[in-house]
Amino acid sequence: MTPRQAATEPPTKELAAQVRAGDRRALAQAITLMESSRPEHRPDAEALLGLLGPLPPASVRIGISGPPGVGKSTFIEAAGLCAVAAGHRVAVLAVDPSSTVSGGSVLGDKVRMVKLAAHPDAFVRPSPAGRTLGGTARRTGDAVRLVAAAGFDVIVVETTGVGQAELAVANLVDVFVVLVGPGSGDELQGMKRGIMELADVVVVNKADGDLAAAAQRVAADYRTALGLLRPRWQHGPTPVLACSSLDAPSVAEVWAALEYFVAQVRASGELAGHRRRQAVATLYVELDAAIVDAVRADPLVAQRLAELEPRVAAGALSPTEAVRQVLAGWSPG
Amino acid sequence: MTPRQAATEPPTKELAAQVRAGDRRALAQAITLMESSRPEHRPDAEALLGLLGPLPPASVRIGISGPPGVGKSTFIEAAGLCAVAAGHRVAVLAVDPSSTVSGGSVLGDKVRMVKLAAHPDAFVRPSPAGRTLGGTARRTGDAVRLVAAAGFDVIVVETTGVGQAELAVANLVDVFVVLVGPGSGDELQGMKRGIMELADVVVVNKADGDLAAAAQRVAADYRTALGLLRPRWQHGPTPVLACSSLDAPSVAEVWAALEYFVAQVRASGELAGHRRRQAVATLYVELDAAIVDAVRADPLVAQRLAELEPRVAAGALSPTEAVRQVLAGWSPG
Repeated sequence: MTPRQAATEPPTKELAAQVRAGDRRALAQAITLMESSRPEHRPDAEALLGLLGPLPPASVRIGISGPPGVGKSTFIEAAGLCAVAAGHRVAVLAVDPSSTVSGGSVLGDKVRMVKLAAHPDAFVRPSPAGRTLGGTARRTGDAVRLVAAAGFDVIVVETTGVGQAELAVANLVDVFVVLVGPGSGDELQGMKRGIMELADVVVVNKADGDLAAAAQRVAADYRTALGLLRPRWQHGPTPVLACSSLDAPSVAEVWAALEYFVAQVRASGELAGHRRRQAVATLYVELDAAIVDAVRADPLVAQRLAELEPRVAAGALSPTEAVRQVLAGWSPG
Repeated sequence: MTPRQAATEPPTKELAAQVRAGDRRALAQAITLMESSRPEHRPDAEALLGLLGPLPPASVRIGISGPPGVGKSTFIEAAGLCAVAAGHRVAVLAVDPSSTVSGGSVLGDKVRMVKLAAHPDAFVRPSPAGRTLGGTARRTGDAVRLVAAAGFDVIVVETTGVGQAELAVANLVDVFVVLVGPGSGDELQGMKRGIMELADVVVVNKADGDLAAAAQRVAADYRTALGLLRPRWQHGPTPVLACSSLDAPSVAEVWAALEYFVAQVRASGELAGHRRRQAVATLYVELDAAIVDAVRADPLVAQRLAELEPRVAAGALSPTEAVRQVLAGWSPG
């Protein structure tokens, strides 16, 4: 044990006890500790995670993605209120690496989900502003473990459908929900290629008023499109539902469908296997990223890469030969 | 210059001259050299590639993917005969890491594309049997450069749509064509998730006889599905065509559409940018893979990983902390 650990363990133990007791202030402080990019905070963060233990099996992590303007916050608030009404404790976390760029989320976080945020059984955490994706995803995974330890059994992770965060979030959650609008495809075209392949459930939002019929057509189009893909789970093709966040009963139906989905994959044993694979996959993703970062940061490697990359781009040198030259003389360990 | 290089350069120079002269025997021998997994063959292989120079800008590389049974060979033979009739010289290479498992390709390669293989302006290379994907993709990239140097200006790279090879092949070619059957989705469901996102052109094959109407419906379904994705190229959504490999005029139409597609992306400058990005992307993919392989093969790293992975799978240790412990004390260079 290093002197530093000896000095910090007692406050970490106290923080762990407060988080476990559901103290919101302690929870917010603990999430801030996870979000810190200062390396000297990491030992405390890891010590805290170690004290709080693994994710409770009964918790459910739901990812919600969708393009800006599709109504994610309104939907999450409506679905979250359904969940607390059913006796759950709901936490909402946001992953939005672009928030400092768009500027939207910063204001948005203050005014959105007012009812849910005020509910005694809910906890809404604003997006951490402007971080790198890798770091954000890792810290969000840590935050999920904290809110679970604090007794929140439904954990919603929100992300925009336009960045690079979806795959990271899909690897953090039990169910990945993609929210789309009732439009004729304009906003869908702006979505990242591949996001539909990550969807466990698709929800067409804003199925109300003049748009109700359009939303049903869009839902049918998505059923056709998703029917061409191999199902992600044993029990059949990806469900596509339509709802209006302004119509509580329709959101309640979507919430019931999500609960049913989770119950099915839990009963079949798929969920437990899914979580084990996610954890191991995250281990290797983080490991490989750490290895590659370390080696690419090596000054000799970086210099050789800078010299050879233009020749590879021009087709004058094969990538294989360039790799051989970059790594010549380098060895691990 | 090392003694080894001095000893092997003269035969390599002769081989390069023979390949450039279009000598089929030399070309086959050169491809075999690229396919060799023996490290002592690699300097000769790289020397040969260096002598032959970069890919000629006028060449076109077309990837053809699709599930087993969809008629890839028949389609490629019919399209290849169109291309030679139009004055092109056509080479067909196959990437099929599963060929030794399925057993199908080995027999198949001997009897298929008989007419095309016998044509003086065509060259059909059977699949190399059972290799790892990474190696196969790299060696196929090398083989593409060889056949291009031998004067084949249309290079078809064939792969099955069920393995892991599609992304690698999509990164090797100018146009990635996905071939699908006219069925009601059964065979499509067996395809890898994500393959449609790689498609530059989708061709519904076997649009003949009783299946002609079904093929048109399937084509319409794909148009709808692909309309939900962001287009890969500036000129609009991914084209979806139907044809029958038994009906030469319908294949000629598809071939004309492919030529038109390539002419468009060449004229817009997109093709040149695409090729530069592919080469650089391949460089980093190969570099990162080489780095990760080297570090993971380190006995200490491997031992720590084996110890910690079960704890990460059980949720008892965070992936981040496991990475820290695995790499503790390790440093690059």
